[in-house]
Amino acid sequence: MIKKILFCISLSVNAVLAQKPQDLLIPAPKEYNSNNSRFIVSTAFAIVVKGNPNERIYAAATRMLQRLKGRTGLFIAQSSVTRMNTDSTMVIEVKRPGANRLFEDESYQLNVMSTHILLKSETDIGAIHGLETLLQLLQSDNNGYYFPGCLINDAPRFFWRGLLIDVGRHFMPVDVIKHNIDAMAAVKMNVLHLHLTEDQGFRIECKTFPKLHQLGSDGQFFTQEQIREIITYADDRGIRVIPEFDIPGHTTSWFVGYPELASGTGPYDIEHRYGMFVPTMNPIKEETYQFLDSFFKEMTGLFPDEYVHIGGDENNGKEWDDNTSIQAFKKANNLPDNPALQAYFNKRVLEILTKYGKKMIGWDEIIQPDLPKNIVIQSWRGKQGLIDAAQNGFQVILSNGYYIDLVQPAEFHYLNDPLPAAIPLSDEQKKLVIGGEATMWSELVTWETIDSRIWPRTAAIAERLWSPATVADVHVMYDKLDKISIELEELGLTHEKNYEMMLRRLVGNNDIKALKTFVDVIEPIKNYHRVSTKEVHYLTDSPYARIADAARPESRIARHFNDLVGQFLVNRNDKAMAEAIRHYLKLWASNHSNLVKIIQKTPVLKEVETLSADLAVISKIGLEAIIFLEGDQKAQKSWYDSSMHKIQLASKPRGQTEIAMIKGIQKLLDNVKY
Amino acid sequence: MIKKILFCISLSVNAVLAQKPQDLLIPAPKEYNSNNSRFIVSTAFAIVVKGNPNERIYAAATRMLQRLKGRTGLFIAQSSVTRMNTDSTMVIEVKRPGANRLFEDESYQLNVMSTHILLKSETDIGAIHGLETLLQLLQSDNNGYYFPGCLINDAPRFFWRGLLIDVGRHFMPVDVIKHNIDAMAAVKMNVLHLHLTEDQGFRIECKTFPKLHQLGSDGQFFTQEQIREIITYADDRGIRVIPEFDIPGHTTSWFVGYPELASGTGPYDIEHRYGMFVPTMNPIKEETYQFLDSFFKEMTGLFPDEYVHIGGDENNGKEWDDNTSIQAFKKANNLPDNPALQAYFNKRVLEILTKYGKKMIGWDEIIQPDLPKNIVIQSWRGKQGLIDAAQNGFQVILSNGYYIDLVQPAEFHYLNDPLPAAIPLSDEQKKLVIGGEATMWSELVTWETIDSRIWPRTAAIAERLWSPATVADVHVMYDKLDKISIELEELGLTHEKNYEMMLRRLVGNNDIKALKTFVDVIEPIKNYHRVSTKEVHYLTDSPYARIADAARPESRIARHFNDLVGQFLVNRNDKAMAEAIRHYLKLWASNHSNLVKIIQKTPVLKEVETLSADLAVISKIGLEAIIFLEGDQKAQKSWYDSSMHKIQLASKPRGQTEIAMIKGIQKLLDNVKY
Repeated sequence: MIKKILFCISLSVNAVLAQKPQDLLIPAPKEYNSNNSRFIVSTAFAIVVKGNPNERIYAAATRMLQRLKGRTGLFIAQSSVTRMNTDSTMVIEVKRPGANRLFEDESYQLNVMSTHILLKSETDIGAIHGLETLLQLLQSDNNGYYFPGCLINDAPRFFWRGLLIDVGRHFMPVDVIKHNIDAMAAVKMNVLHLHLTEDQGFRIECKTFPKLHQLGSDGQFFTQEQIREIITYADDRGIRVIPEFDIPGHTTSWFVGYPELASGTGPYDIEHRYGMFVPTMNPIKEETYQFLDSFFKEMTGLFPDEYVHIGGDENNGKEWDDNTSIQAFKKANNLPDNPALQAYFNKRVLEILTKYGKKMIGWDEIIQPDLPKNIVIQSWRGKQGLIDAAQNGFQVILSNGYYIDLVQPAEFHYLNDPLPAAIPLSDEQKKLVIGGEATMWSELVTWETIDSRIWPRTAAIAERLWSPATVADVHVMYDKLDKISIELEELGLTHEKNYEMMLRRLVGNNDIKALKTFVDVIEPIKNYHRVSTKEVHYLTDSPYARIADAARPESRIARHFNDLVGQFLVNRNDKAMAEAIRHYLKLWASNHSNLVKIIQKTPVLKEVETLSADLAVISKIGLEAIIFLEGDQKAQKSWYDSSMHKIQLASKPRGQTEIAMIKGIQKLLDNVKY
Repeated sequence: MIKKILFCISLSVNAVLAQKPQDLLIPAPKEYNSNNSRFIVSTAFAIVVKGNPNERIYAAATRMLQRLKGRTGLFIAQSSVTRMNTDSTMVIEVKRPGANRLFEDESYQLNVMSTHILLKSETDIGAIHGLETLLQLLQSDNNGYYFPGCLINDAPRFFWRGLLIDVGRHFMPVDVIKHNIDAMAAVKMNVLHLHLTEDQGFRIECKTFPKLHQLGSDGQFFTQEQIREIITYADDRGIRVIPEFDIPGHTTSWFVGYPELASGTGPYDIEHRYGMFVPTMNPIKEETYQFLDSFFKEMTGLFPDEYVHIGGDENNGKEWDDNTSIQAFKKANNLPDNPALQAYFNKRVLEILTKYGKKMIGWDEIIQPDLPKNIVIQSWRGKQGLIDAAQNGFQVILSNGYYIDLVQPAEFHYLNDPLPAAIPLSDEQKKLVIGGEATMWSELVTWETIDSRIWPRTAAIAERLWSPATVADVHVMYDKLDKISIELEELGLTHEKNYEMMLRRLVGNNDIKALKTFVDVIEPIKNYHRVSTKEVHYLTDSPYARIADAARPESRIARHFNDLVGQFLVNRNDKAMAEAIRHYLKLWASNHSNLVKIIQKTPVLKEVETLSADLAVISKIGLEAIIFLEGDQKAQKSWYDSSMHKIQLASKPRGQTEIAMIKGIQKLLDNVKY
């Protein structure tokens, strides 16, 4: 029983959070003031909308009502929020219809009083943010569900808070996109960037040039009706949809149906490998621009947002170098190198977009001083790109440091501020830094795993882009991630629930306890190591259901353990803490013998067999180190050296995963060094 | 450790199954013969298709390949199955293109040999069934993954193996429908019956009469493009889609936009309650039939299947009785009662359907001797309806006994044979019984819970409708349900994974252990008790996320426990069995004190607080009974009577749930009676 209680202390954070309601909110609001009252949620809860909102507020308030019913089980009488409502316990007052465009007013004021709630905003988009805030405030005790009384004034720090989803390398069905739109809205993100075309797939129906999607997609693409459905769905939730058509590189899939667009001679097949490929659009043929004119005419009619993303990244120039006409063109036009040629190409594309009333956004390779200043640069290669862009007078958004596909800890992204204090920009230049985007590249994810790579970590990025720069307590952030992660599930996301589902598939039955104990504390290897290794050669149709795919990007339990160790080391007399650490270590030390029986009949697990053995080995080292620490003793050199050696062996990734609680063991060992 | 092993014995069945490969297959094939070899699955596994199939076989084989990769983690080199393939370890030989229509040949022969696999069939539809069989055969041991060598000859017992999904009362998004189509294909079902219109919603876009979906659906309906997407998706998987437009009753939602169709005076609003309602189409106005003619002209163009379902159930006749013109019409046309008037209506509708090349299917109320014999009767009110239909020369499908929304045990449905040995039908009449349909009515389910009400129990119905009548071992069936339930998850179904997700939402965090221990052994109350009670008054927009919604229709653990008790009682010296029972009982006896702490801060759980307490009480009774049994003793009357009383109290449902392991306790008690 004592173990159980200790275990709960280390895992459950809600009791603590409940004492500080503003720490329930992610992203944290600009200002939060408690009024020490409570609004009790009852079946009489009812919403009235006043003022002059866009229609979308009614459906948004109705969805909020349904989620509130779902969380509380209360049979709230109001069935939907409509224009007809009169009685209310909550009033939403909106001054004017909002539009989903850059620089729209998204502020709101939420006042929770004991008898009623008032949500005021300039636009319905602000009000939609306020509804999410209210839902996040929900708490309960023995007397019922309630919202803590408060006055919140809130507005975003940055106007552009985006999530890129790459549907090129692995296509994602409409429902995956919709669930992610809902999740974005829950954390007040406002730009969905759809990376629609890639070497591996052309993912949107094109009526003008139907061979694009017919021959370039392996049959996996969005119809235009589906795109409209996605845009409407996003618009209803205060989210813009920006399409990316990545040119002139990353275009193999275009050339399967239209090889005449390429700089090489073809023929071209859809690319099923990963990496940087040679096929590149031919920038010297007028036919290319005629094609792009017709193409963008159709696509700009489909996407209402004022921005179109043209990609522009990773053109390796090989196909240009190999084409003598292109070489001649460069010479004739005084274009000294391939970047200069690409700048020429970009300007031609910009003319087309401008003709169709659109503004351009592209990766930082597109930057050229003489481009108009209304374009947006997306900085991905490093912080300097952002600085260069702003210093040159361009609007810029940050993606460097927000590459969530690289499965780094949320903390890493969270502390990546687009405008750190020391940035060498003037106040005017700082205003050009308008936000950022998390990027979900899809080499290694399918519809089954993509949510787990996006959430909950992206909520940390959402907070970075919305909340004041001073909101930067990593521990509070992690507690909030634990909370929002569960709340996001009501929107249909699979980031939590597909974890055990994948373990069940691997084992082939429900008996996943030993496997889960192990996978709970491992993580897939980080950065680009999974795709750059020779060990495994991934193609788009490889299996993405191994241990490395099931394991979460950031082990919650390893983090708790490593934190516990840190706390214990500053207070070695805390018996409860020591006991909690011991509880974990015993679990892991004894797990391998159970898991190995499963591995013996489950070939797909063999690749992690020695890793599981190593988990037991280092857990035993940890148990021994605790004894030294409790006795205020140092370890002998021989024990220390041999333990260090074992930890080094255990640090080696296997099955493209690594043990995530090893840091805690290392810390214990550091503190018993002879 | 001993406890753990015992626990595993009682939960894990795969080891046993692995010895008898045919018992892996659901539905069981007609004939299975082992050849004592093994086909080892390696990365060289490759499929070639020969013969003259419909195109759909290529995509189906490719999907099978991806699922095989996912289950094994093997980087199988073949990326997709196309016309171009030459090398192979598996050959699919198809004689002719299949068509998704009634009485199509669905047979196949699967021959797994040590070096290659041969799948032969008359049609590609048969081959698709064979691919599912092969995947279900997959096994593994320390040497790798393999298919057991065998020769299978298989064909269905019934031609019509359907699942009805009611999207009227609660709308279900396209992805829910698609996942269920995949699941149907996995267990060889071949008819998706979409119940598209109800008092509570008109769920399909109608271009001729757009107010039907615009005013009758609360905005929740399938567009025609989505319907086409569903039909194509189903057709690719060997499944027919039958639309139901339920008339003349169940039509409130039609009348919101078109009140002139009704027999009453209106106005009408979408119905948000449940039950049998008054609004009914006006059968005496020619305008009604003109409307229906245009309506069916459009809809029969959309749905390619030769059958259209016209519902016809539960017309209570009140609106007809209240309309003097209708009364006069009946008199003038010698229609003695409302059923006669409805028969007149049906014949007029039949004329329209016939004109558009369709055959009619309806609920058993539509039966009239002078209807043409090519219609199909769907028998729902009782077995007699099926017998009457067949005796009158009509084709008939059984749904009575397959009402999966009533959350009865799989065993109940499994033993419900459409053609039991004693049925009073001639051989010719028996041929008219062409199959059955599971019916998923949606009063109490949303997109979150519907899968858990359909699966895995519907797989038992699928087996009943496909396999020989002699396949009726309930224990084998349940073992197979456990296995298929996990396999179905790879298709995106949420029946397993939404369980813990809903528990997390109820508790508001990850600490669901105590709640899960409790909910693991309770079930929602059965039949119509949840909607017919006065305790809770459900509307379409009520919360469907309480304990009764999270709890599974049939508790797997309660079933295991009750089985264990049964086995122990016939072998009371089996110490391992006694220990396994004791393990469960101790867990339950000690759980309430943990759960009550959660309940105290979670108001939505209060409704089951005393039920959780009762679980502890009866578990303690069970522990005491075991002691009596082990000592070969009887209990004293006072103990017995007091225990019986406690069990009776514990039997009372709370929170619309009941304790499912109570049968095992009752059995223990029966055996220690003084």
